[in-house]
Amino acid sequence: MNEKKIGVWLIGARGGVASTAILGLAALKRGLIESAGLVSQLPRFQRLKLADWGRFVVGGHEIRRAPLAGEVARIVEQTRIPMADLLEQCRPELEEIDRRIRPGTTIGVGETIAKLADLAIPQDETPRQAVERLARDMNEFVAAENIEHLIVVNISSTEPPAEVSRSPSTWGELEKLLDHNSAQGGQSHFRGENVQSTSDIDHAAKIGTVPDCPLPASSLYAIAALQSGHSFVNFTPSLADSPAAIDELARTKKACHYGCDGKTGETLMKSVLAPMFARRNLRVRSWVGHNIFGNMDGQVLDDPENKRAKVASKDHLIREILGYKPNTLVSIEYLPDLGDWKTAWDHIHFAGFLGVPMTLQFTWQGSDSALAAPLVLDLVRLTEYAHRLGHIGQMPFLASFFKSPYGATEHCFDRQFESLEQWAAECEAASDY
Amino acid sequence: MNEKKIGVWLIGARGGVASTAILGLAALKRGLIESAGLVSQLPRFQRLKLADWGRFVVGGHEIRRAPLAGEVARIVEQTRIPMADLLEQCRPELEEIDRRIRPGTTIGVGETIAKLADLAIPQDETPRQAVERLARDMNEFVAAENIEHLIVVNISSTEPPAEVSRSPSTWGELEKLLDHNSAQGGQSHFRGENVQSTSDIDHAAKIGTVPDCPLPASSLYAIAALQSGHSFVNFTPSLADSPAAIDELARTKKACHYGCDGKTGETLMKSVLAPMFARRNLRVRSWVGHNIFGNMDGQVLDDPENKRAKVASKDHLIREILGYKPNTLVSIEYLPDLGDWKTAWDHIHFAGFLGVPMTLQFTWQGSDSALAAPLVLDLVRLTEYAHRLGHIGQMPFLASFFKSPYGATEHCFDRQFESLEQWAAECEAASDY
Amino acid sequence: MNEKKIGVWLIGARGGVASTAILGLAALKRGLIESAGLVSQLPRFQRLKLADWGRFVVGGHEIRRAPLAGEVARIVEQTRIPMADLLEQCRPELEEIDRRIRPGTTIGVGETIAKLADLAIPQDETPRQAVERLARDMNEFVAAENIEHLIVVNISSTEPPAEVSRSPSTWGELEKLLDHNSAQGGQSHFRGENVQSTSDIDHAAKIGTVPDCPLPASSLYAIAALQSGHSFVNFTPSLADSPAAIDELARTKKACHYGCDGKTGETLMKSVLAPMFARRNLRVRSWVGHNIFGNMDGQVLDDPENKRAKVASKDHLIREILGYKPNTLVSIEYLPDLGDWKTAWDHIHFAGFLGVPMTLQFTWQGSDSALAAPLVLDLVRLTEYAHRLGHIGQMPFLASFFKSPYGATEHCFDRQFESLEQWAAECEAASDY
Amino acid sequence: MNEKKIGVWLIGARGGVASTAILGLAALKRGLIESAGLVSQLPRFQRLKLADWGRFVVGGHEIRRAPLAGEVARIVEQTRIPMADLLEQCRPELEEIDRRIRPGTTIGVGETIAKLADLAIPQDETPRQAVERLARDMNEFVAAENIEHLIVVNISSTEPPAEVSRSPSTWGELEKLLDHNSAQGGQSHFRGENVQSTSDIDHAAKIGTVPDCPLPASSLYAIAALQSGHSFVNFTPSLADSPAAIDELARTKKACHYGCDGKTGETLMKSVLAPMFARRNLRVRSWVGHNIFGNMDGQVLDDPENKRAKVASKDHLIREILGYKPNTLVSIEYLPDLGDWKTAWDHIHFAGFLGVPMTLQFTWQGSDSALAAPLVLDLVRLTEYAHRLGHIGQMPFLASFFKSPYGATEHCFDRQFESLEQWAAECEAASDY
Repeated sequence: MNEKKIGVWLIGARGGVASTAILGLAALKRGLIESAGLVSQLPRFQRLKLADWGRFVVGGHEIRRAPLAGEVARIVEQTRIPMADLLEQCRPELEEIDRRIRPGTTIGVGETIAKLADLAIPQDETPRQAVERLARDMNEFVAAENIEHLIVVNISSTEPPAEVSRSPSTWGELEKLLDHNSAQGGQSHFRGENVQSTSDIDHAAKIGTVPDCPLPASSLYAIAALQSGHSFVNFTPSLADSPAAIDELARTKKACHYGCDGKTGETLMKSVLAPMFARRNLRVRSWVGHNIFGNMDGQVLDDPENKRAKVASKDHLIREILGYKPNTLVSIEYLPDLGDWKTAWDHIHFAGFLGVPMTLQFTWQGSDSALAAPLVLDLVRLTEYAHRLGHIGQMPFLASFFKSPYGATEHCFDRQFESLEQWAAECEAASDY
Repeated sequence: MNEKKIGVWLIGARGGVASTAILGLAALKRGLIESAGLVSQLPRFQRLKLADWGRFVVGGHEIRRAPLAGEVARIVEQTRIPMADLLEQCRPELEEIDRRIRPGTTIGVGETIAKLADLAIPQDETPRQAVERLARDMNEFVAAENIEHLIVVNISSTEPPAEVSRSPSTWGELEKLLDHNSAQGGQSHFRGENVQSTSDIDHAAKIGTVPDCPLPASSLYAIAALQSGHSFVNFTPSLADSPAAIDELARTKKACHYGCDGKTGETLMKSVLAPMFARRNLRVRSWVGHNIFGNMDGQVLDDPENKRAKVASKDHLIREILGYKPNTLVSIEYLPDLGDWKTAWDHIHFAGFLGVPMTLQFTWQGSDSALAAPLVLDLVRLTEYAHRLGHIGQMPFLASFFKSPYGATEHCFDRQFESLEQWAAECEAASDY
Repeated sequence: MNEKKIGVWLIGARGGVASTAILGLAALKRGLIESAGLVSQLPRFQRLKLADWGRFVVGGHEIRRAPLAGEVARIVEQTRIPMADLLEQCRPELEEIDRRIRPGTTIGVGETIAKLADLAIPQDETPRQAVERLARDMNEFVAAENIEHLIVVNISSTEPPAEVSRSPSTWGELEKLLDHNSAQGGQSHFRGENVQSTSDIDHAAKIGTVPDCPLPASSLYAIAALQSGHSFVNFTPSLADSPAAIDELARTKKACHYGCDGKTGETLMKSVLAPMFARRNLRVRSWVGHNIFGNMDGQVLDDPENKRAKVASKDHLIREILGYKPNTLVSIEYLPDLGDWKTAWDHIHFAGFLGVPMTLQFTWQGSDSALAAPLVLDLVRLTEYAHRLGHIGQMPFLASFFKSPYGATEHCFDRQFESLEQWAAECEAASDY
Repeated sequence: MNEKKIGVWLIGARGGVASTAILGLAALKRGLIESAGLVSQLPRFQRLKLADWGRFVVGGHEIRRAPLAGEVARIVEQTRIPMADLLEQCRPELEEIDRRIRPGTTIGVGETIAKLADLAIPQDETPRQAVERLARDMNEFVAAENIEHLIVVNISSTEPPAEVSRSPSTWGELEKLLDHNSAQGGQSHFRGENVQSTSDIDHAAKIGTVPDCPLPASSLYAIAALQSGHSFVNFTPSLADSPAAIDELARTKKACHYGCDGKTGETLMKSVLAPMFARRNLRVRSWVGHNIFGNMDGQVLDDPENKRAKVASKDHLIREILGYKPNTLVSIEYLPDLGDWKTAWDHIHFAGFLGVPMTLQFTWQGSDSALAAPLVLDLVRLTEYAHRLGHIGQMPFLASFFKSPYGATEHCFDRQFESLEQWAAECEAASDY
């Protein structure tokens, strides 16, 4: 049984985060790197029976043609990885993985992302046809590689925002929409501007016009994964598995899933610093955060539509932690010369005792991909473990990894991390019997 | 009974922190300011029966003559308090408090502090005589003001470092040293350079020379307070109540005490950020912290002897939280033009996944006194409450307020704060019966 | 002759910059402050026979009703002026000045500014009527105060951008437009979106429709001043005196004028740092500047239309100094909690030898008004001197004071300053005869 | 004639700056890199007949054994040079240069540097013997490589400070000291602590004790170069060619020389920003500069003796530019984890109009070696040109390259640069005939 492999299926398999995760996993298998950046390698989690890195095997979906090894080479240069020969040592594995990558879908991804596609993506599929094709790719991978359990991770570019609340609330209803036409113009119809309420859809149906299916690509990948019983992790702020109807599907299939939007840098800092201000009763008057970087994620977020989803995900937690609303501002700017190197400057203006105005500023400079990639590996490893122990549905104990954890009211990083530790302790206790 | 007052006795009663605390307390009594900066005013502590600010009355010891109202005026200008007329409204109370301030002692404070003294300080007291005089001042205050309980807080300038481990470990032994001569040259003899071990003292006694008493002023104040059953809080890194023998005295007298070194700015940030790096397995390679400011505290710390105590207190917790020792550097520099305005610049170099080097920098700009003063008021209020509920000895639930909490192994701010919340919950539960 | 006064007429006389300049001038007359921030007080200009501060007398136009002393009080608190009683000592003079302030005009100022008006501003004036009224106010001030020469300075809020190139190029043509209707909706019609070319206006005239006069308020003030022979200085990026036709008017009337847009903080830094990169052949790849502040100027610039003029003025000089175009980004964000306190964060990414990527970041924290006000006083004083020596038309030797000096190709601050020194040397030499 | 080569003799030929300069020169010859960072490549200097990079050939002195290619490899990794294969393409040239490197001398370099020596350095030479040996090495290189003119550049580690003023003022006197013993303990005797005045030496001579020769290694290299008519450039703050007596030698031999201490980063910023504050009459109250880095230069400067020379060189120019003395502080700290990557944080506190306190902070992050190396190449190229045109003695037109240019009273970078441009214009004009 132990010989069976664990599958990792990456949506956006040639992007910066995927490239870095794939390189890192290959390096871990060869013992070429240390554990820096990997949460699951912390001493406190070593008594869990987490799977060895050697058992993981990678495949995925993409819409771009660029060879994986080339993407990795670009990342190695941009991220300043201090090991010049790492790529050479791992090249054969990268080429093997590259051959397992299949064309994804651009349904509902928005124009900016759709324009990046240069692989032969089927253009006239209904959503159901897309889901079936994507699921077939995943399942063929499972069969070909002798995989015990598959974890699908969405690390593709951020789609324009979609409103969860307007999606039909049961799987039965949502499932029917898969036979409607795909969203035109590459955009989802759940967005606030186009649809007043879900009853619009019903109404349209009643009067004889058939509305487009409102599900964007990220949700089609989620459905493809979950209906086959695979796990699904949403590392982006796209819609994906967040609708209640898709959670229903997951629970029916006894599958695990969670998200959304990996918490890697500036927002991690916010979830650590805002509690400090709250606990010391220092009154935050304004919190300004400016993010500059130049990778493909930045390029996609340069489209105001796509940026809106990200900014909302980065901004909300300050007021949720503080319990009041200071002036806030989040900007994300694309500077191509910066490549994968992200700089965030935050300026926090707060009032102390006697109303004295004070400030904290921080500058965070890091490789976007090198911050995200280890969390993707951690999530895959912890999800596999949770699934192995029989967990079903959402995984709130993983909240500390996300900017907008599903259903969470706790945004303090320390408390989120504590709940991860607590879950680990319970798992350990349970597996002792 | 409720009509009786609560006494606050400040050591260093005309310094910047004291001036700000006194002004702030006066403003709180008059409802002139909001609760910003006061931990004990957080919603989560409102169900405790903490004493009203109106019940607190202030006195203290000082070695400088400068009128309190003048010190407050200087602080108001330097700290940029946004209420020009606050001082005028509180001036009568300040003058009243000023009349209650008595001359302290300069025994063992080091030359830099001793030179600041311009009040008539008795110069030829033995330590025991000093303790008796200081205790008399406190007790006369208690009697004159109809005080139910007195809390003594040390917010005087940082003394040169003294080694706790070399102090006699029982009160019986320590108490005998009070009759020896006072430390000469204004310096304590517990410092590592001068005394190899406490057996030196015994040895000196045996061979007929009587060594100086090694206790500095801060410890004499602590003894004066605790032997009368008052509470004692050490907001500085000076020796004060930290020796085990003085804790024994406190427990004998059923008194409460704790310290040391208020955690107000840069170190607070360290105790919040270091856990983030630890929990994300980001490997800190170096942590450099430069502090610049220009108040009297800065002037005293400009003496390398006095600075040594402070730097040690600011530096240790990084390696205790991380579990390994990165390169660290802490500087504290006196720039008189900056007045009470402190700027800390920290540069943290860390390795992420694949060894990628990244950095976090922060700049903290705040009024030193306006950050410390509310914590002093909180500590007084919480200590009074603990004493009222029958607590005896050290108060580890107050660890989150200190850079170097006595006996603590937990330096993560969030966990320290959690223990404060837990204590509050237990007190609340206990007082329900 | 020496007893006659020098008049300063401020457009926007109750704004932050005006309030600070007025307070500062009153303080200078009383010898209450030192010369910090005043360029004309530098030792190198002391041999020029510049007018004494005691000779200057202030009046102006405004659209807001708020009493001047109240505005000054607000500025004193927000700018952290370290002299609490300065306002009290100067209050009688402020009240005297307040009584000299007359209602301005809101023609062409844009909606955001127009909404701030609460004085009784005539609403149905033609541009010519407005000019006549404004000129009458200025001339009555000259007569009433026994003024030898009047300098009018525009420090009112930034209007939406207007294109100089589309204005008629002769005063004869422009003058005729004053009888047309005023711009509706508070907006100038020179803006690129609305008018294809100036021939549109001719065409409209030919076909019988009479177009609105395209001149905004700032230009009407400039015309009012210059046609009476007063000097005019444009401290904002508004259109004002920049059209060639208005320069023609100035030269006809032997008047002096110059602008535009005072160079006070971030842009000053750019004009100092960009030459350093250029001279060391360090290749700037991107230059990002984020400005946050909360005064009325910020509130007006929060309107994207008004902001556009400012951003253009802050951005152009980098590529003009470097000789190539790096990626640039300038943001100006309104955070009301910051008041007059402006923070600029600039991030400069540059390539050094061997293409090594390096960065410079700076944070500039200052009072917007306290940076601008002394330059206004310097400009008034230097303009009076130039006029006294017979200068006519634009004053390019004042380029170092402006972000976008008229007709300038030199944007390096040091060279601009050198031309000021050279002019001073020439004046000195000339006045020796 | 044009076929003859130009020799570059580097003192410290395997250090970080040398390694980078050697790699860069090799890359320039092959057209592999652009001109970024090279001042002599600016368009404004292209009409001078500067020598082509292809004509330069490199040799040098060293005290360490480490192979040059290894040092270059380390630098390539640490400086983040974005061309992985640059080293491979240039390796043959590096190996050729490595074979030309000869053992230097450790006379008077201080213990910290002396301990780094692992080449076979003659230990019992008199200063004269050392000078003769070093000169022989240089002259053999000239002969072997068919060199028309040799430029010797000191880029070895900073020696402990030596006082120029105490050195004998004529070459005749100084020359005699070369026969005395070498400084013991690796330290020069010109330092303030050891010698009260130069008459001590005379006195010692009179009473029969022969004092050690006070010249450190840097001066011995300078003498070796200049007495053979080679040019000499001092890129460090060590004593080298700064004594008047050595300038006399240079002029006698019709040789060119200049220094000292290359102005690469933080001090460059100071010489650009201080003039801005001066010209705007903004009063600097304090200027704090903290420098952190981890290369060998940093390791040597970690010795307080060696650091003293550097700090003095970085600190003096602020007060010389401003004309008054603000509080200043310069720290240089060795953090080995930072390698060649230097971060400088400067905090400038200044008073503006009405005494309002404001601040400017900057963070400069760059590769120490990549900033210095191109300046070394520029200096070599410009010195060769000056020598070719007949220049003799000090070269004040090169002041903009140095922190402490010999004999300079002008420290504003822009004016220093202007004098370089002026010199270039004069050379151009002169060479037109």
